[in-house]
Amino acid sequence: MKFNDFLDDLVNYEAGKPIELVVREFGIDAKDVIKLASNENPFGTSKRVEEALKEVAKNAHLYPDDSYFELKEGLAKKFGVTSKKLIIGSGSDQIIEFALHAKANRQSGVLMAGVTFAMYEIYAKQTGAKIYRTKSVEHNLSEFLEIYNAHKDEISVIFLCLPNNPLGECIDADEVYKFIKNIDENTLVVLDCAYNEFAKFKDSKKEIKPSEVVKFKNAIYLGTFSKAYALGGMRVGYGVANEEIIGALSKLRAPFNITTPSLRAAIVALGDDEFVQKTMQNNFEQMKRYEDFAEQNGIEFIPSYTNFITFKFNEPKSSQICEKMLKKGIILRDLKSYALNAVRITIGQAWQNDRVFEELEQILK
Amino acid sequence: MKFNDFLDDLVNYEAGKPIELVVREFGIDAKDVIKLASNENPFGTSKRVEEALKEVAKNAHLYPDDSYFELKEGLAKKFGVTSKKLIIGSGSDQIIEFALHAKANRQSGVLMAGVTFAMYEIYAKQTGAKIYRTKSVEHNLSEFLEIYNAHKDEISVIFLCLPNNPLGECIDADEVYKFIKNIDENTLVVLDCAYNEFAKFKDSKKEIKPSEVVKFKNAIYLGTFSKAYALGGMRVGYGVANEEIIGALSKLRAPFNITTPSLRAAIVALGDDEFVQKTMQNNFEQMKRYEDFAEQNGIEFIPSYTNFITFKFNEPKSSQICEKMLKKGIILRDLKSYALNAVRITIGQAWQNDRVFEELEQILK
Repeated sequence: MKFNDFLDDLVNYEAGKPIELVVREFGIDAKDVIKLASNENPFGTSKRVEEALKEVAKNAHLYPDDSYFELKEGLAKKFGVTSKKLIIGSGSDQIIEFALHAKANRQSGVLMAGVTFAMYEIYAKQTGAKIYRTKSVEHNLSEFLEIYNAHKDEISVIFLCLPNNPLGECIDADEVYKFIKNIDENTLVVLDCAYNEFAKFKDSKKEIKPSEVVKFKNAIYLGTFSKAYALGGMRVGYGVANEEIIGALSKLRAPFNITTPSLRAAIVALGDDEFVQKTMQNNFEQMKRYEDFAEQNGIEFIPSYTNFITFKFNEPKSSQICEKMLKKGIILRDLKSYALNAVRITIGQAWQNDRVFEELEQILK
Repeated sequence: MKFNDFLDDLVNYEAGKPIELVVREFGIDAKDVIKLASNENPFGTSKRVEEALKEVAKNAHLYPDDSYFELKEGLAKKFGVTSKKLIIGSGSDQIIEFALHAKANRQSGVLMAGVTFAMYEIYAKQTGAKIYRTKSVEHNLSEFLEIYNAHKDEISVIFLCLPNNPLGECIDADEVYKFIKNIDENTLVVLDCAYNEFAKFKDSKKEIKPSEVVKFKNAIYLGTFSKAYALGGMRVGYGVANEEIIGALSKLRAPFNITTPSLRAAIVALGDDEFVQKTMQNNFEQMKRYEDFAEQNGIEFIPSYTNFITFKFNEPKSSQICEKMLKKGIILRDLKSYALNAVRITIGQAWQNDRVFEELEQILK
């Protein structure tokens, strides 16, 4: 059977390995597995969310209120924007998909950093668009501008990942706003702020404000409940932009794109400031330990504004490191598929990080 | 901002009204609202699923095992096919989306019944494809063939809804298999079997067997956990086809397209035969009461192979009926958006149906 030819060029996203796989393949007990591969919240599900999920368990048969009224009201209040400037997605991934399907096509180009979140390229290729990347692996806005100016008529979407997954660096908000002003109003600038809560906790200059983003004619803010709010398994994200952009993207949103429990979990998580605060404090206290470990062991790393840290290696190969750690029951993220000899490690709780340091030291000896 | 021009032609799916809306707009207590608008299971969530969901509530932070290993194994065993012939979707809706994005484009056409599930057209238009519909509102395979033969080079996807939502009729499986043999191997025939469990309970001749469908080079079976398995709010569906088709569609599947609780719920629901059996028995016992009610009140109806029945009216207008019922706290589905003066009613439990008959009789007086 013949399929649309853009499919020939598509490869699937390589997801972090699940605990179940380690159990299946290495016979390690699930409770002994430490998963620091997918930037999930190391504190697990917050108690308030867990209770809320138990309460709505009986409603699995009911489609959610597709207006997402209460969740949108909560987000609108938090960000100081109106509900009409919001769209809810099955993870912020889905808003990336909507943005690309609304703007990109076979005649257009999509611009992104040298190494950045893999789904930008995957979704872009589904539209047949051409991919442009900066030579720098990390975000370099002058390179972005250079490429943009050379292909102005072609580039329809630009992705900035703030902070950048899987590397961890983050551009200042002021620089981002200045950058958008240099971009034609007909090119959509997507500000992927999946980890921005972490960045702004470390340095307020990194905070991208949805209330600022909606003032632009051509920018959208993407947020997620997967990281700071610990709802990775629930798939809830959102976009904030002016009503014209939200209106267009909403046409691509199928009904019931998040589940009934996900909707409840997101509403409850949004009010759980204490949990988010605890997450942030642990994250950067423990991040310091990773930086110290790297320095002590001569490992190069990228200063991170996220809930992970990326270690770069010369020798040995990152795949060998990850494979050896996996056999010890510790799942890390090999960045080989990003063409890097690097390992991305989610910042865990102290006891998890202790195990990582212990085993990694052994392996690198 | 300029968007891809196919967006101009898109309208959103009009979802059934949620209970929350009736509470908000009419001030009716949630527990007094009867929702028979979205073909949800009237028995609610099965006890086994509810317990399983409570157990996994603590795992909301964890992404699911993206291989969906256990769920696929369960489905493979049930249907007598291999796991490689399966793809999991966020509802069967998402498999409809994958099928269309893989096959349809601006140069192609998509063929469907005169009145059928609205998402076929919505997703098809996202690819820029042209929509062909039979003149008959219900499925008429000779009309399908006629249109197909007249536009053979153009039509890339054909949808058969078995049984048909929102009308309820169902073609025999033998007729369907014969039909596929008349279709070129390069045109994908999508057999949407979201309600097929109901059809085959009523009449075994309606059973579409995934193990038969995989033998075709150009057909895919779509199933869902939303109806018979009572997981509407969890968004889990699946496709079964030969490995070539599944391979192509899998390229469009983003990671973690169902939630962690959804995965667990589907695995548990799949083993809950007793619950499905109870659902089926109630459905057709109560369906008989709707048929009797219709005959007693001179209402025309379509004999239904689903968990709903569609009443056709001359006078009054279906919108007026639905609006009046809504004010009584009973949510039904107006089919005005399908250009029909008809109301689709989900078959409820006896006490819910009692209320419907009582109020509807009043309104139609």
